[in-house]
Amino acid sequence: MQQLKDRILKDGRILENGILKVDGFVNHQVDPALMDACGLEFSKRFANAGATKILTAEISGIAPALTTGMHLGLPVVYARKTKPITMPDQVYLTLAPSHTKGRMVELIISPEYLANGEKVLIIDDFLATGATILGLVRLAEAAGSQIVGIGTLIEKDFEGGRKVLKPLGAQIESLACIKSLDNNKIEFMD
Amino acid sequence: MQQLKDRILKDGRILENGILKVDGFVNHQVDPALMDACGLEFSKRFANAGATKILTAEISGIAPALTTGMHLGLPVVYARKTKPITMPDQVYLTLAPSHTKGRMVELIISPEYLANGEKVLIIDDFLATGATILGLVRLAEAAGSQIVGIGTLIEKDFEGGRKVLKPLGAQIESLACIKSLDNNKIEFMD
Repeated sequence: MQQLKDRILKDGRILENGILKVDGFVNHQVDPALMDACGLEFSKRFANAGATKILTAEISGIAPALTTGMHLGLPVVYARKTKPITMPDQVYLTLAPSHTKGRMVELIISPEYLANGEKVLIIDDFLATGATILGLVRLAEAAGSQIVGIGTLIEKDFEGGRKVLKPLGAQIESLACIKSLDNNKIEFMD
Repeated sequence: MQQLKDRILKDGRILENGILKVDGFVNHQVDPALMDACGLEFSKRFANAGATKILTAEISGIAPALTTGMHLGLPVVYARKTKPITMPDQVYLTLAPSHTKGRMVELIISPEYLANGEKVLIIDDFLATGATILGLVRLAEAAGSQIVGIGTLIEKDFEGGRKVLKPLGAQIESLACIKSLDNNKIEFMD
């Protein structure tokens, strides 16, 4: 998606350890018009996936998941990383490593909002190693749901997440796929 | 806003300690169409506020802040509760009590995205005691920004937050104002 790639080139910053900082339009400050355009694009790419629910992880997945949900007319569930007191005692819970926090985080979903037989479209900001998304997959499968698609704003191809997710057999889409961040240069896949 | 009040009556649940659970359409599962309608309503109410930026707190403020930003054409900044490694060392940081977590949480904003002279519209899910919103106000004022409006989806009038915020002199709007949750009954202000 050219609009997203252009914005990454303009405002993205390469930090140490292969971290791409997009805090100016995705992860701390959000550009609502860009997120809406990304949601529209996801809605086109997953138009035939048959999804009944969108699943994401708080925090940074919420914006693109919400706009995708607006365009597909689907509810959005975001997995919590801490259990609020409004949640029942029995939950689906798994652990996933957080790249930007440098530690394991919990991913928690209430059975109230993820049912048996649901067809789940996962939307998140980044596809890197695939660890967070695999965590969401475990939660969805524990609930008896089926993953019908995985969409991320930015894929870091060199971290191998797509290979990890491929065996799921779901459609995988990223709106900007990065081949390399070497030599302080952002290089996209064709 | 009748659409939000109707949804609260239909799907809201009263828990202990005056907690209103709206996890089915705001706080865990989100209804994108409802959030879009709320954003449109905020955009009308704050059309003349002169805001240059929308400020919210992760996590549950993101959805209504994003849709408001879409309709007003403004960027959205969400204060982080943990400092990601993408954030610079020098930040604006304050502490605020979290009602649903039962402890103090940090609210952190990078100076990169909140500048001197910005006119800030705060959007959040709840106005209860006003403590979280006052935390956002402190961060904005530390950055040299001015608060021009405060909008929340749900106000719990009996927790007194409006009185706490009134001295700021900013326009305060809530889309559903709850008078009482006594006797397991949701009663709105007129």
